[in-house]
Amino acid sequence: MDWMNQLREEIGADVVFTDPTTRLAYSFDATPNYQAMPDAIVAPRSTEHVQAVLRLCHTYRIPVVPRGSATNLAGGTTPLSGGVVMDFRHMDRILEIDEKNLTVTVEPGCITAHLAQAVEAKGLFYPPDPSSMKISTIGGNISENSGGLRGLKYGVTADYVLALEAVLPNGDVLHTGGKLAKDVAGYDLTRLLVGSEGTLAVITQATLKLIPLPETKQTMLAYFEDLDSAARTVSRIIENRVIPATLEFMDKKTIEVVEAYANIGLPTDVGALLLLEQDGPRDVVRQDIEAMHAVCLEEGALSVEVARDEAHAETLRYARRIALSALARLSPTTILEDATVPRSEIAEMVRRIEAIGRAYDIQIATFGHAGDGNLHPTVATDARNHEEMERVEAAFADIFAAALDLGGTITGEHGVGAMKAPYLEWKLGPAGIDVMKGIKLAFDPHGIMNPQKMFAKAAKKRIVQGGKS
Amino acid sequence: MDWMNQLREEIGADVVFTDPTTRLAYSFDATPNYQAMPDAIVAPRSTEHVQAVLRLCHTYRIPVVPRGSATNLAGGTTPLSGGVVMDFRHMDRILEIDEKNLTVTVEPGCITAHLAQAVEAKGLFYPPDPSSMKISTIGGNISENSGGLRGLKYGVTADYVLALEAVLPNGDVLHTGGKLAKDVAGYDLTRLLVGSEGTLAVITQATLKLIPLPETKQTMLAYFEDLDSAARTVSRIIENRVIPATLEFMDKKTIEVVEAYANIGLPTDVGALLLLEQDGPRDVVRQDIEAMHAVCLEEGALSVEVARDEAHAETLRYARRIALSALARLSPTTILEDATVPRSEIAEMVRRIEAIGRAYDIQIATFGHAGDGNLHPTVATDARNHEEMERVEAAFADIFAAALDLGGTITGEHGVGAMKAPYLEWKLGPAGIDVMKGIKLAFDPHGIMNPQKMFAKAAKKRIVQGGKS
Repeated sequence: MDWMNQLREEIGADVVFTDPTTRLAYSFDATPNYQAMPDAIVAPRSTEHVQAVLRLCHTYRIPVVPRGSATNLAGGTTPLSGGVVMDFRHMDRILEIDEKNLTVTVEPGCITAHLAQAVEAKGLFYPPDPSSMKISTIGGNISENSGGLRGLKYGVTADYVLALEAVLPNGDVLHTGGKLAKDVAGYDLTRLLVGSEGTLAVITQATLKLIPLPETKQTMLAYFEDLDSAARTVSRIIENRVIPATLEFMDKKTIEVVEAYANIGLPTDVGALLLLEQDGPRDVVRQDIEAMHAVCLEEGALSVEVARDEAHAETLRYARRIALSALARLSPTTILEDATVPRSEIAEMVRRIEAIGRAYDIQIATFGHAGDGNLHPTVATDARNHEEMERVEAAFADIFAAALDLGGTITGEHGVGAMKAPYLEWKLGPAGIDVMKGIKLAFDPHGIMNPQKMFAKAAKKRIVQGGKS
Repeated sequence: MDWMNQLREEIGADVVFTDPTTRLAYSFDATPNYQAMPDAIVAPRSTEHVQAVLRLCHTYRIPVVPRGSATNLAGGTTPLSGGVVMDFRHMDRILEIDEKNLTVTVEPGCITAHLAQAVEAKGLFYPPDPSSMKISTIGGNISENSGGLRGLKYGVTADYVLALEAVLPNGDVLHTGGKLAKDVAGYDLTRLLVGSEGTLAVITQATLKLIPLPETKQTMLAYFEDLDSAARTVSRIIENRVIPATLEFMDKKTIEVVEAYANIGLPTDVGALLLLEQDGPRDVVRQDIEAMHAVCLEEGALSVEVARDEAHAETLRYARRIALSALARLSPTTILEDATVPRSEIAEMVRRIEAIGRAYDIQIATFGHAGDGNLHPTVATDARNHEEMERVEAAFADIFAAALDLGGTITGEHGVGAMKAPYLEWKLGPAGIDVMKGIKLAFDPHGIMNPQKMFAKAAKKRIVQGGKS
């Protein structure tokens, strides 16, 4: 192929791969059921390389899919239209930790956990902690606006991105923002690129905001007889003006599966558990943990365990941390969703998810970030069982509709990707979709950036159930 | 005029004004030297009214300028192309304070201070505090992404906007976001509308994030012999991992002018002052104030005064609060700028501003938000003195160039408006401007929304001085 030879000539044959094994390895991400072969994989060493690739792809109308570690759960990094997958393994450096301005500047391939450790060594803190952070990259986190367990108190990735260098599809370099607490020079392009899922430009450098590392942290686990008392606890903690660093939820089904998997002595006769953490100055943490402890008991917690030390805290966190792994071993295919609702609607949302599971005769376990209203209903299924997969898809459509009905959204932290593209219009309406398509066109007139993501060929028809819609 | 009669018919003659007095009153904002007569003023009572106005203006290509209280300092709310000024006096309600989800939902005409007071009465806190908050509206704050004194610790308006209802130029209603801590369904249209200066759509409702009201607050004032020791103090406080709620700066010239105006006993033989505040839990505030006190002394502060009580704190804050009023009385025209640099560059930036003032023989006093690197170099001049005004303009161009040279921006919190439109390309480059124009086109194909703002007919030529650019 002509463009491929030109690619090799421009950026070097050592960073262009077209062998079947490599292509296969880049044909999928962490999402079940989405796979397509790319024509080539390129691993640029510099912004100039990225410019050269994009210029060429722009000219020849070749699709480009930027990819970090491909932990995406919405099919966002699959090369559905073929073309070039761009891998950032060579652009993974931490370029600067600026202790005067409390910023860190990195290349997109930098592993999130490496960054977190590097800044912690200097007494600084990068709060976003997606579950995949040990392998996910900052470029991927920015492209997806990744959340994590600390979202309620500390916000998400977007809240820490101060400046970006990005290459536009035509090869031009765009610089947005700066090491600045305030910048209102025009539209917020930084924030527009964050969460744009590789559909607008390729991020080649990012400057992130850091904050002082909290002095200490305390961990607590509480069991509840039923969902409602756990949900009431969540609401009342916030109403009492305590904003915990972590406020995680697991339903009965998840607890059972985790215990069956790990045998760690979780009680399986409970209805729900909450994992609560607070960080900050020692006295504040003590007070907040006491306050949360009191609310748990007032709302009828069956038991509450406060960690004695960090080792004990690790065991309390363990159940939540392995939830997905435990669920994943139940069956060949695990589908993890992230419908999100206002915090006050968590109990209602979980009830609706349970009802939907019963209606479609599928097993749904739900866990997630209760403080954020960000739930992960998870289905253990088998992609080869087409009949069941159809029921699963119909159930998820109902779950999205339920989340929207409660004032929520179809995705809290995983992104739209290919998987939720048909549902995006449910959230945004035709006017919102039109505006987004216009924005896409402004950046990417030939539609080469991560095609078939975010925008569906056709929106799903939404079947409105009951009186509300 | 045909469209005006149609306007009266559609939304009622009682909310359409075309008399010369009203038109004159809406011909300017708080920016000196920008004035133009609108053809009509409309004061919608509902989203439906806004839709009707926009549909009509879209059809007849009539410019629309949304306007809150017109405290804008960049000519952003002047009807430079005539047309309709939209006034939100009738849409000023607080619709809901949601204590479960910690949100407040308001109409755009709501006065910022009213909102702040209403939520404080419930133990909640809306941190953004632009200096104009006693008269400015939330709609204006959102359109400009207003900052304030608490930006360093708490962020700016954008950090508190969770959801928007906005009317597109064609009359369609757009709903973005939700009462959600996390939402990644497509591009971040909420954030794109925040700071868009009325050039994309008309905001008709906003849901804002609230946080618990801090337990207490402490205030401290420190004098320094020279600029550098004050700037070093700012840097060292942050390096010591203390993020104060307020970290304000006034230079020698500003101190002199304030003392001459208010006679409050400020020492005029000092080089700079810092106003420092911390809020939060009592113990944390005490520790942080002690830590900041120690840094001030280590860096050679001439004196440090810690407020004994709230009344004393008010007197310490007074000098900073009246700085602009004091400067404004010096001469007929006061031009307040807001070039912003990384925090570490404050001393250098103030030195460059002083040098620029000398070079153009104009008086520049500088004060501002030192913790944010957000400085307000202020010139007392006379708009009728054209020769001096030319020097002032040239000086400001040099100030913007200096800010950019130091990694900063042309506007930290005032917006681009008409005043800085010719300089926007200096910050964004041609690629950034092109992308922004494409975004503008996606929302507003006929260019009716607040024309002549943000995008200049022609960019200023930038004269690069010295070796760096």
